[in-house]
Order: sequence, then C-alpha cells, then structure tokens
Amino acid sequence: MAARASHIADPGLAVDGEARIAWAGGQMPVLELIRERFAVERPLEGVRVGACLHVTAETACLVRTLEAGGAEVGLCSANPLSTQDDVAAALVDRGTSVFAVRGESLDTYAEHVTKVVESNPVITLDDGADLLSLLHARGGGRVDGLLGGTEETTTGLLRLRRLETEGGLRCPVLAVNEAQAERTLNDRYGTGQSALDGILRAANLLLAGHTLVLFGYGFAGRGIAQRARGAGAVVVICEVDPLRALEARMEGYEVLPALTAAERGDLFITVTGSRGVLRREHFERMKNGAVLANAGHFDVEIDLRGLRDAAGGDPRRVLPLVEQYEVGGSRLNLIAEGRVVNLAAGEGHPAAVMEISFALQALGVEHLVRKGPEMAPAVVDVPRAIDDEVARLKLAALGVEIDALTDDQHDYRQSWM
Amino acid sequence: MAARASHIADPGLAVDGEARIAWAGGQMPVLELIRERFAVERPLEGVRVGACLHVTAETACLVRTLEAGGAEVGLCSANPLSTQDDVAAALVDRGTSVFAVRGESLDTYAEHVTKVVESNPVITLDDGADLLSLLHARGGGRVDGLLGGTEETTTGLLRLRRLETEGGLRCPVLAVNEAQAERTLNDRYGTGQSALDGILRAANLLLAGHTLVLFGYGFAGRGIAQRARGAGAVVVICEVDPLRALEARMEGYEVLPALTAAERGDLFITVTGSRGVLRREHFERMKNGAVLANAGHFDVEIDLRGLRDAAGGDPRRVLPLVEQYEVGGSRLNLIAEGRVVNLAAGEGHPAAVMEISFALQALGVEHLVRKGPEMAPAVVDVPRAIDDEVARLKLAALGVEIDALTDDQHDYRQSWM
Amino acid sequence: MAARASHIADPGLAVDGEARIAWAGGQMPVLELIRERFAVERPLEGVRVGACLHVTAETACLVRTLEAGGAEVGLCSANPLSTQDDVAAALVDRGTSVFAVRGESLDTYAEHVTKVVESNPVITLDDGADLLSLLHARGGGRVDGLLGGTEETTTGLLRLRRLETEGGLRCPVLAVNEAQAERTLNDRYGTGQSALDGILRAANLLLAGHTLVLFGYGFAGRGIAQRARGAGAVVVICEVDPLRALEARMEGYEVLPALTAAERGDLFITVTGSRGVLRREHFERMKNGAVLANAGHFDVEIDLRGLRDAAGGDPRRVLPLVEQYEVGGSRLNLIAEGRVVNLAAGEGHPAAVMEISFALQALGVEHLVRKGPEMAPAVVDVPRAIDDEVARLKLAALGVEIDALTDDQHDYRQSWM
Amino acid sequence: MAARASHIADPGLAVDGEARIAWAGGQMPVLELIRERFAVERPLEGVRVGACLHVTAETACLVRTLEAGGAEVGLCSANPLSTQDDVAAALVDRGTSVFAVRGESLDTYAEHVTKVVESNPVITLDDGADLLSLLHARGGGRVDGLLGGTEETTTGLLRLRRLETEGGLRCPVLAVNEAQAERTLNDRYGTGQSALDGILRAANLLLAGHTLVLFGYGFAGRGIAQRARGAGAVVVICEVDPLRALEARMEGYEVLPALTAAERGDLFITVTGSRGVLRREHFERMKNGAVLANAGHFDVEIDLRGLRDAAGGDPRRVLPLVEQYEVGGSRLNLIAEGRVVNLAAGEGHPAAVMEISFALQALGVEHLVRKGPEMAPAVVDVPRAIDDEVARLKLAALGVEIDALTDDQHDYRQSWM
Repeated sequence: MAARASHIADPGLAVDGEARIAWAGGQMPVLELIRERFAVERPLEGVRVGACLHVTAETACLVRTLEAGGAEVGLCSANPLSTQDDVAAALVDRGTSVFAVRGESLDTYAEHVTKVVESNPVITLDDGADLLSLLHARGGGRVDGLLGGTEETTTGLLRLRRLETEGGLRCPVLAVNEAQAERTLNDRYGTGQSALDGILRAANLLLAGHTLVLFGYGFAGRGIAQRARGAGAVVVICEVDPLRALEARMEGYEVLPALTAAERGDLFITVTGSRGVLRREHFERMKNGAVLANAGHFDVEIDLRGLRDAAGGDPRRVLPLVEQYEVGGSRLNLIAEGRVVNLAAGEGHPAAVMEISFALQALGVEHLVRKGPEMAPAVVDVPRAIDDEVARLKLAALGVEIDALTDDQHDYRQSWM
Repeated sequence: MAARASHIADPGLAVDGEARIAWAGGQMPVLELIRERFAVERPLEGVRVGACLHVTAETACLVRTLEAGGAEVGLCSANPLSTQDDVAAALVDRGTSVFAVRGESLDTYAEHVTKVVESNPVITLDDGADLLSLLHARGGGRVDGLLGGTEETTTGLLRLRRLETEGGLRCPVLAVNEAQAERTLNDRYGTGQSALDGILRAANLLLAGHTLVLFGYGFAGRGIAQRARGAGAVVVICEVDPLRALEARMEGYEVLPALTAAERGDLFITVTGSRGVLRREHFERMKNGAVLANAGHFDVEIDLRGLRDAAGGDPRRVLPLVEQYEVGGSRLNLIAEGRVVNLAAGEGHPAAVMEISFALQALGVEHLVRKGPEMAPAVVDVPRAIDDEVARLKLAALGVEIDALTDDQHDYRQSWM
Repeated sequence: MAARASHIADPGLAVDGEARIAWAGGQMPVLELIRERFAVERPLEGVRVGACLHVTAETACLVRTLEAGGAEVGLCSANPLSTQDDVAAALVDRGTSVFAVRGESLDTYAEHVTKVVESNPVITLDDGADLLSLLHARGGGRVDGLLGGTEETTTGLLRLRRLETEGGLRCPVLAVNEAQAERTLNDRYGTGQSALDGILRAANLLLAGHTLVLFGYGFAGRGIAQRARGAGAVVVICEVDPLRALEARMEGYEVLPALTAAERGDLFITVTGSRGVLRREHFERMKNGAVLANAGHFDVEIDLRGLRDAAGGDPRRVLPLVEQYEVGGSRLNLIAEGRVVNLAAGEGHPAAVMEISFALQALGVEHLVRKGPEMAPAVVDVPRAIDDEVARLKLAALGVEIDALTDDQHDYRQSWM
Repeated sequence: MAARASHIADPGLAVDGEARIAWAGGQMPVLELIRERFAVERPLEGVRVGACLHVTAETACLVRTLEAGGAEVGLCSANPLSTQDDVAAALVDRGTSVFAVRGESLDTYAEHVTKVVESNPVITLDDGADLLSLLHARGGGRVDGLLGGTEETTTGLLRLRRLETEGGLRCPVLAVNEAQAERTLNDRYGTGQSALDGILRAANLLLAGHTLVLFGYGFAGRGIAQRARGAGAVVVICEVDPLRALEARMEGYEVLPALTAAERGDLFITVTGSRGVLRREHFERMKNGAVLANAGHFDVEIDLRGLRDAAGGDPRRVLPLVEQYEVGGSRLNLIAEGRVVNLAAGEGHPAAVMEISFALQALGVEHLVRKGPEMAPAVVDVPRAIDDEVARLKLAALGVEIDALTDDQHDYRQSWM
C-alpha cells in the first residue's frame, strides 16, 4: 500500500499502539466476526470513508474492520484530549491516513478535519457531526458524491436534524446511537457497570448496607440500581416521570422525593440528562460522609455553584479524585468534580459494550454502500435488520445459539398482522 | 333511582356479591381515588355507557366508578363462563342494568348484547369488540350518537382496525391494552406473578434448585424469569428474537436453543404469543417428571396433539389440574391442559394489577366525553397524559411521593427539543 | 406377605392412595435413590421399625423405602388431623401395619400408639416423641432391645433431652431436624416458598411494589425476604438480634424498629419463633388494607387478643381464609387466624423439600442398625456423613455432578489441621 | 506527652499521613463511636499495648482509639511492604511509638519487633503471631505480666494453638478472625465486593452476559456470586463440598464439575482456600480470551507451573496487571499473577468492612483488661457480647435502629431453653 498523508505525534509509538489494539480487539469479538466476513466478501472495495471519531484502540479496530472490507479510511479525532498517540502511530504504520495529535490546538483540529474532507470521502463516520457539517459547508462539489454518513451522538443528531429541517442535508445519515441494540445495551450494561466501577476506584466505598440514592430511572439508572442492589446496597430512586417511578417501585426499590432522600443517602448518583438535580437544598440535608457522583453525560446534574455556596467556600482534596465540602456539620465528598464518573474516574464502558456501536457503524457503512444511492437525504433509523444482526453476532461471540421461527410459527404471526 | 331492565340469575345473591365487591374494592385503590374525584366533579353526568366485559367483582368496581361520575351503565358479559352471579345481583340491587347469567347460551348471550345496544349507549367498553361491532352492524342510527369506545383485547383491536381500514368505523376507539401503563405493568407484574402462582397451586413444586426453561422473553417472560430466579430456580431462556435473547443473556440467564433446553428443564413455561412452541421433538427429550405449563393467552403454545402422539395415547390425571403423559421412559406432567395457567390454575392477575386497565378505562371514558366529538373515527392510543395520571394515582395509592421538574429543568429539557 | 394387624378407615381407598403415593414419589427422587440401593443391599433385613409420623403420601414413601431395605414397619399417626385415609389403605394393601384413622379420638390415638409399641420395634421414628416416650414409660422390657430412634421436631427433642438429663433415656436418638442439611434447606427453601404461596392462595395479593414487613431474619426469614424481593416487593426487616439485623441490612434490606415499620407495611409476616411479635401498638398504626400472616410454627406470633381488643370486637370473614378487623379507620386482614400460613392456607412444603427429612430418617435408621449398639443413650447429631450423603443424592437427583478433592488438595487441607 | 522512642522513614511526612488517617477515619464510624466512649470512660488508662500490625491509615485509627481509652501503644509492622511511611510519621507526631519503615530488611524487622517487646506490653495485638511468639520465646519475665493478646490471622492462630497444645501459651488470646461478626461480614461483603473490583480495575471486563466460573462457595464465594449475578453475569459454581454445592444450586446457580466448567467460562475466580484448583487440564479446555483471577489468600489456587507448561513458555504482559498465556489456540489472561486479586489489583477491603476487625480488637483489648487476669491461658473465642456490640454499633453508624426483646418474649425464650 502506498504511503498516504498523515499527521500524528510520533510514528515510533506504533509497537505500543499495536499491543493496545490487540487487547481491545480481543474484547470486541463481534467486530472480529464482521472483519472476518468483510475480508472474504470485500463489500467496501475502494470505498473512501472519512471518520471523525475518538482516536482510540477500539476505534482502530473499527477502522481495520472497514479496511478489511476494502475501504480506504481517513481518520481525524473528534476530541483532541482522547487521542491515543500510540494507536494513531500503529494505524499509520499499517497504511491508514490519520490526522490526530493528542492535545492538538483548535486550529490544528480544524486543519485535520479539513484534511479528511479533502480525501474525498463518500461515506462519513461522525461523533458530533463535525466532519459531515464541514463537508456540507465547505466541501463544494464533494457533497454530491456522498453515499451517506453515520452519527454517534445526540448533539450531532441535533445538528444534522436542524440541517435537514432547513433543507440543507444532502445525504442519508444513520442515527447509530438511537439504534435499538445500542439503546438497549449501552446505558443499561455499559453505564450500569462503569459508573459504579468509577466510584469504587475513586473512593473504595463499601456498597453493602449503605444507601444509594439514585436520580433517574432510565436505562442507565436501571442498570446502576440493579448492580447496586446486587452489591447489597439499599437503593432509593428519585424520578420525576410517574411511569418510570412506578416501574422502579414495582421492582421493589423505595421511591422518594429528593428532599427526603437527601437525608437518607450514603451515596448519591445522578443520571437524569437534566440539570441542577442535586442542589443546595439537598446538600444542606445530607449526612456527614455522603459521597456524590454524576453518571450523566454532562457535568450539570450536580449544581457545583450551589455546593460551593452551601459550603461557604472551596473544597479540599482528600483523595486524588475526591474533593470534600463542609456543609453545616457534614463533610460531603464529590467525585471527579461532578464530571461523568465512568470516564472521569474509570476507563469508561468496557470494550465489550462499546463494540455494539462500532458494529452498528461497520454494518451501517456496508448498508450505505448498498442502499445509499436510493435513500432520501434524511436522518434515519438504523434498519432493524442491522440491529438484529449485531445482536446475533454478539450472541455468537458469547457462544449462545438461538432458534428461528418455524414456518408454521411464521405463518401464525403473519395471520395476526 | 328507578328500576331498570336487567336479566340475571338470582337477585337474592346480592349480599354475597356486595361482600365480594367490597374486597375487590379494597385491592383497587386507584379506582377508589378516581371514584372519589368523580363523585365530586361528576364528569359523566347523564352519559349512557354500554359495557360488554367480564362480569366480576373488579368490573363492578369500574361500573360504580363510572356511576359515581354520573354515568348510567348497561352491562352484559363478554364471556358467559366468567360471570359471577352474585356480583351481577349486587349491581342490579343498587340500580345498574345488568344482562348476564353464568353459563348462558350463545343465544342468550346475543340477546344480552342486544339489550345493551338498545340502551342507546354513547360510549362503549369492550373486551373483544362484540358490543361496538354489533352497534355498527345493527345499531341503526345509534352509531351516529357515539362519542367513542374503549377496547381491552388484542383480538378486539384487530377486528376494529379491520373495520377502520374498510372505512366502516364511526367513532374513536381507545386501545386500552396498548397503553404504556398497561403494557409496562400487566404482563411483567401480573403474569409474572400469577403464572408461577398458578403452577404452585396446581402442583406444589419446589422452584429452588430446579431448572425453569422459559419460552419467550417479552414483558411477561421477564416478569416470570425474575420471580423464578428470586425463588432460587435455575432459569434458562429460549427466544427467537436475537435482541431479546441478548437482553436475557445480559441479565445473566442462560439462553439455549429449544432442543438443548428440552433436556435440561424440570419445569417448562411457554409465553411467546406463538404456536407449536413445545413440540413432539421436545417432549421426546424431556426428563422424567418434567412439568409443562402455558402462560400465553391461547392454548396453542404447547402442541397437545404432538404430546399425545409422543405418548402414544391419552394421559392420566394425577392431580386435579395435572395430567401425566408417558413419553419414552419419562412421565411428563401437563398443567391445566395447556390453557393459560394463571387463569386455569389460579385466580388470574391480582386486582391490584387489573385496576390499571380499569383506571385507564375510567379515565378513557372521561376523555371521550370531553374530546370524543372532535376526535376522528379511528383506533387511537390512550393519551400519554392518562397513562401518567394512572401511574401517579398508583404511586399515591402505594403511599409514594415524587418530585416534578423544576422550572429550570423544564427549560433545559425544552432547549434540547 | 402375611396380613398384619392394622386399623384404618377404609381399605377400599387403596387405589386412590396408591395414586397419591405415586405422585409424591415422583417429587422425592432422593428417597427413590435410597430405595433403589436399599432394595439391593437390604441393610434393614428383618429390622422392626415403629413410626409415629404424619400418615401422608410422603411418609408412605419413607415407609416403603425402609421396607425395601428389609424392615418391617408399624405406623401410627403423629396427628389425627393430617392422616390421609387413602394412603393408609394403600399401605395396608401392600402389607404395612398401619393404625391411623383421620380425626380419630384421643383415646383411639393412644390405642394406636400402643399397638405400635406392642409390635416390638427396635427402632422408632417420631414426630413429637410420643412413641419413644411411651416405649420408655410403658414398654417394659422392650426398651432394652432398642437400637435407637429419630426425632423430627423441636418439641420432641425438648422432651427427649429432658428425659436424657433426668437419666431416663435408654437409647440413642438422632436429632433429625437439627441436621445441617435440614436446617440449611427446610426453612430457607421450604418456608421461604410455601409461606408466600399460602398468602397468595388466601388473598391473591400483588407483591410487586408493595411493602412486606418481615419479622425475623433467621433461615426462614431469609428465604421469604429473597423471594419477596424477587417478586418486586419492597422488603423491610424487623429483627432483635443485632448480627442478624446487620446481615439483613448488608443484603440491602431496610431494617426498622417495629413501631416504625407498622406504618409502612402492606403485608406483615412473622417468623421469629417468639410470641407477641405483632401487638396492639402495632395494629393501631397500620394502614388500611394491611394483610397479616404468620409463618412461624406456633400461632402466638400475632397477638390475636390484642388484635380483637384494638378492633373492639370480632372480625368478619371476607374471604374463606381471611378475616377483617376494623382498627381505627383501618381494615386489617388476618390470614388463617394467625396459624402457620404455609400449612393453614397452602399445602405446606413441597415434597422436594420434605424429602430431605425423610432421607435423613432413612439413612438414620440404617446408621442406627449398624452403630446403635455401640452408641451411648443420648440425643445426638445426625453424623455429618449422612448430611453429605443426602446432599450428594439431592444433587444427583437434580442432575448435578460435582468434583471431589484431589489427593494433593486433601493433603493440603490436612496440613492445615 | 514526652517523646517516645521510634524508628520511621521520614517524620516530615506527618501532614500527608494525617490527611490519609482523616479519610480512613471517616470510613470507620464504628471505631469512631468506640473512640468517643473510650475518651470518656478511659478503660485502658495506663495500659501498655504492643501491636504488630499492618502500619496503615486504618490501623492508625485503631491505635488512636486505644490511646483515647488511655493506652500507651507501641507499634511495629507485621509486613514491611504494607507500611505507609506517612501514616507512621503522623502517629509519631502525636506521640505513638512506632518502629516501621516501608521495605525494611528482615533484620530491621526483627529489631523492630524486639523494640516493641522491650516496651513491656501487657496486651498484644498480632497479625501473624510474631509479637506474642517473640514475647514467649525471648520476653523473659515479661510474659508473666501479660493480660492477653488478640490475633487476626488463621496462620497466627495455628501457631498459637500449637503453642497452647505444647503447654507453652501463657496468656489468653482472642481469635478475632474467627469472631461471628468478622466471619459473617468480612468474606461475604469485603471479598465479595473487592475481588470483582480488583478484576475490573485490572481488565475493565464487562460482566453482563459473560460467564463467571467461581470455584468455592464459602462466605467469600457467596458474596462474589451474588454481586456477579447482580451485574448480569451467568454464574457457574464449582464446589467439592456437597452441602455447599447444593446450597449454590438452591440459589439458582448452575453447579458443574471443573472440567465441564472450564469450557464455559469467560472469567474464572478461585476462592477455595485449597491449592491447585485450576490446573493444566482446565487451562487446556478454556476459551480464547478467558480471564483468570484468584481471590483466595494464597497464590496457590491457580497452578502457575501448570499454566506455564500448558503454554509451553512464559506469558507476555498485555496490560499492567494482565499476563497472557497462549494455550493451544486460546489466549488466557491471568490477573496479578494469581495473587489475591483484591489486594494485588485493587485496594483491598473497603475501610467500612475492615473496621469490623478493628472494632473487635478495640473491644477485645478492653475485655482483656477487665477479664484477662481471670482467664485461662488459651486461644478463645471473642465473647458473643462483643460481636453483638460491634453489630449494634455498625447498625447505629448506618443509622439503623432495632428493637429489643420484650420482657414477655424474653420469658418465652427462656421457657424453651
């Protein structure tokens, strides 16, 4: 393969990067199964893919899956802080075109996205819509050749849907993070495990016998609640949606209003998607020694200003990831400054969860190659068949076989419709 | 109140019926809360309601809730076998017009539905669409006065949707059993508990340490699986939908193909909505002593012909609700002839679950009175606000308070939309 | 076999009894495994066994196991109300000597026990110590020939230990209900399941979302708590022993003092072994609709006098097994008059639990035949080897294989001792 | 307080040590409650205590609790590798006599223990019996003044019991790690949580949907199994004790022989107390990607030689705490070289668990001061009253109140005895 343009920190890190990719690959068997098929079928032969994603070992496995299918991939980073320079080096070493340097400036970042645009991709992979947006804004004629894109974040989808509403969107976009498989699995099993994991790493709390007050009983909340109960915690749920609150109660959790719960908790976790969930009025009721963590995407769920006001000043750091506020007579311990705790105090979702998104993206690219030309320019759902295929592969990777409907059962189902 | 026309078995049973209604009322606090409000607000003043439902103590509580709101109710039975004659007597005793006799012939049944049609209802409550269908077919001008109806069964909705598709439907119909609250709660918590309850009543099995093979991981399956695990069973799931199968596995259940599972189970439960789920090939692999039950709506999930063929003849009854088939060297024990086990071997869903449907119907009637005239003639969802209100009332009945979004949180949510 | 003396209600019931025994046998595979071995090895050849037990289908399986081993069994009933006349007939039909008529008078009961004494047993099986006591008191020289006895109840053991203390005990007695296997399994899995089963049969309550206040966190309490949680109940524990209370809390249950818990419960279950656990002060704080049940052996845990006093009078029966007391504004529903709910409202422990006791008794008899002559006259533990054997057989019956220690591991363990 | 002799690494670290002690103190509320009482009652006034323990922040809290009661404490380290030099400095700074330097040589270690002996303690605290052994061997007349000692490890108790058997033990010793409260809580809740925590830290595995094969269903095994199930793992138990195996099965876990389980596991954890639990024959059957960890005290449960033999050579390190062996076609990942995973890959038990031991030791010292003179020289159980007191304090620290028996209930219980 001819050397392609790249801009990375240090090509000499390739060996380390390769080791890291190897480990990640071992944790992502579904992607491996897709890669094996792609290598045989070559469904992406010659397809130019532009990707603006986190440049990590897991992403590298996705890139190589696409390349195994015949794609030429150009990659830049969706977030300069998450770039793993050794992984970037390993990718370049085997011929991927990468533009990413950990900690790069905003200017460099913009240049890097532009480089990927200039590689004339016909399919884009986005994690915030930066690449596809730039292609639409400054890509000139390139936008005409687009088969489609995938988007992995809620904020990216908001941008692209606005573009669609305004009539500016020029290609189909698969809403990966709204796919059934992803919604079913990521929050419940990914956040469910990694949020508690992050908290234990930060503060080595005992969960058994202690009261967890959990704000938010969506998918992530359910996952956290179930794991905390399995660990012996007394779990209390605060939830503003009545049906969700009722479900929580029907699962045997105590459900309380926040002011009451504030007095009960040893550990508080917010995972609502809202803001100002824990506020001064709650801090002032908390027990001495209470621990606070946020597992929602943004660090607005715990009101830090309210916490500082309640404490009458700044906290002191008592552990590397724990700050202590004195509120009334109580010492309140905040983990990771209220940032999303599974990333800020842990390693984020296990690769075995993350690969669901990557598998959806890999199969989404294949789908766009086949069907993109006939699809309308709109943000659309990932086809249910792809969800099913990812689930089927994940089951296979876990060594699980299932049956199919018999013909008779298929007829019976049809007769109902 | 002037005496109204009725046809029931024995008016002298009213006292017994009243006691039964009193007990049911005590188990349905949400309906009681609605009744209290209705009694004050009288939102159904003078509204004629025709109901073709199971004539049981729980239905009686619904009827009286509507009457408390000012409605005049005419009631016939959706199923002659489920009529409680004492309850019918008690209703008549306090002025409801009832046409229902336990075990009535099909002719009598038809006359009874006609009687309710002739009472000129403006709102109908159906459990199979018989009343509303007859109103459309033979009601003459009465159909013009209809504000709308509610339907509680999947088969009834199929009939009404076919009518809608053919252009014949003349009023809005609320699809009660597709309401969020009902789907969330009935199958998971109602069937979840009552299926196992029925099995224990029939055969007094020990669940702990024994292997339950459960076919179907929909809402009902989840409920059953969770309860069986809580009772110490080793739970194995068979499921043809890959995403559901994957969810089952992610909850820690073993997932197996049916032929493999057939050799493992001590107890088999089908709850798939499909047919021929357990077949001869499975029976022939089962262990001596295996117990079989069906928790799906129809008695087609366990293939009885295949079971008889495998056994080479008829079973012998070994307990009042258990028949034993000899298949190869194994004695297989079938509960309640494969009919839905929570009804056939138990008392069905606890009233505290059933009241969700009744509460949706009561609030649905109120909604149709207010909004029916401006609604299109179509089968429509129960408005989410009614779901939420039912959930809120159920929480209140359980003594649970929850918070509302703050203004700031409301703004934040809006800013996302 | 020559006909032996018997006194039963109706020999004509033998066919029905045989069917009942067959069903019970199918639920007791451990006993079946022992019977198969006994039939080959004949370890009880010619041994006369006297048994004063509940004359039920399950006991019949024990009797036949002993007979398969060569024993001659004489059986009378430990409780006239529990005798199954058809089972008695079936036993007699195949040659067992039985003295038991359902509902027999105390005089007849005494005669029946005497008849068994007069059959000159060398081993006794007791469920309350009546037979062995009578043998000691009036058996004359027969007591000299005794190899030993087994006892299955706490009260029976109290009597026999008193006899031992006073120097009167003349043979070894195995304390079956204190065996490790029995304590581990019976209360946790037997009562754990059957108590809730009995309550559902009596009142068809919904457990999900409702608060269970459970008094007593011994083995039975643990079993009930775990099952109730699996069924979606909010479980609150009341316990006077601090270590047990702490364990309950470490399992994630809320632990409260009784007066506080009294206001919270939808369902109250006592299983403490103490008396006056629920008293007037508790009744007066309970919510309208609260349900009360006792799962302890004696009906003294719920203070019925206090309940009647609080209600100012007698209850009214609202369901066949439910009485309602009006206390203040609250209707309190008492199940089965506070008698042990799994027997009074259900069928008691599943046979698959009961067989643990029976298996211990069968192997206990074999042990007494072999070792009785060299054992001191004392109430003693069932040898741990018998516990292990019963567990091993139960695992086998469930189709479970386990490993043994390797020689190396055996040495390692020895080196620690 | 006059300066006392000490030997530590760097007195300048006292501020850091003090912060660390403060955090630990916040996690050990029971010890704090005891300290508060000791400060008032001064039950250890002037008592000289010698302690040979891990010199950590948690131990520092114990030392200060004793000092609050009036004791003079001399401390050396039971393990040179676990000494926290900053904590040692903080202790010395406030007057404790400490002889401990992280990484000290064996000679220095011996000198340090000797220093504590020379401080003439009348009570000893041991974590391996080194101090009390030395006192007996070389303490001369000092042994006559001993009130008693406490011992916290199984190996220490073995040594002391041998000494007792040989007639050499000269004072009573409390077997702290055999206390009811410790056995109930430490393994189940401490190891239960920290073993999985260590594994997640080392390898960020997803537990949901993956199969954990757990060797050993003692207290620690139960805790691990429950937490893994709560996290969505499929849990398989291997156990050689039939009663324990049966219990595992009755809790709904699959129980398998090791060779069969070896093919099933994604994650293997040993916690048996035995050796050679996972051997070559097991490694050779494992799936590609399997992860192996040991949660037992000694690193003999996974046979490392067998693993190296199966792999035909040394592993390669793929993560800081993970080594990969190639066995057949499978890559097997060993965590922390098979050393006890909660310490080797995590931070050990949370302080909230550890404080149970420390509280037992603190109250044990008080007990020895009061009762030591009249106690026989023997290794004895911690009095049950101390267990109860620790449980009571832990409940109080968790904000939990419980009831006491009423007088009537007390009488009833007595009447049973």
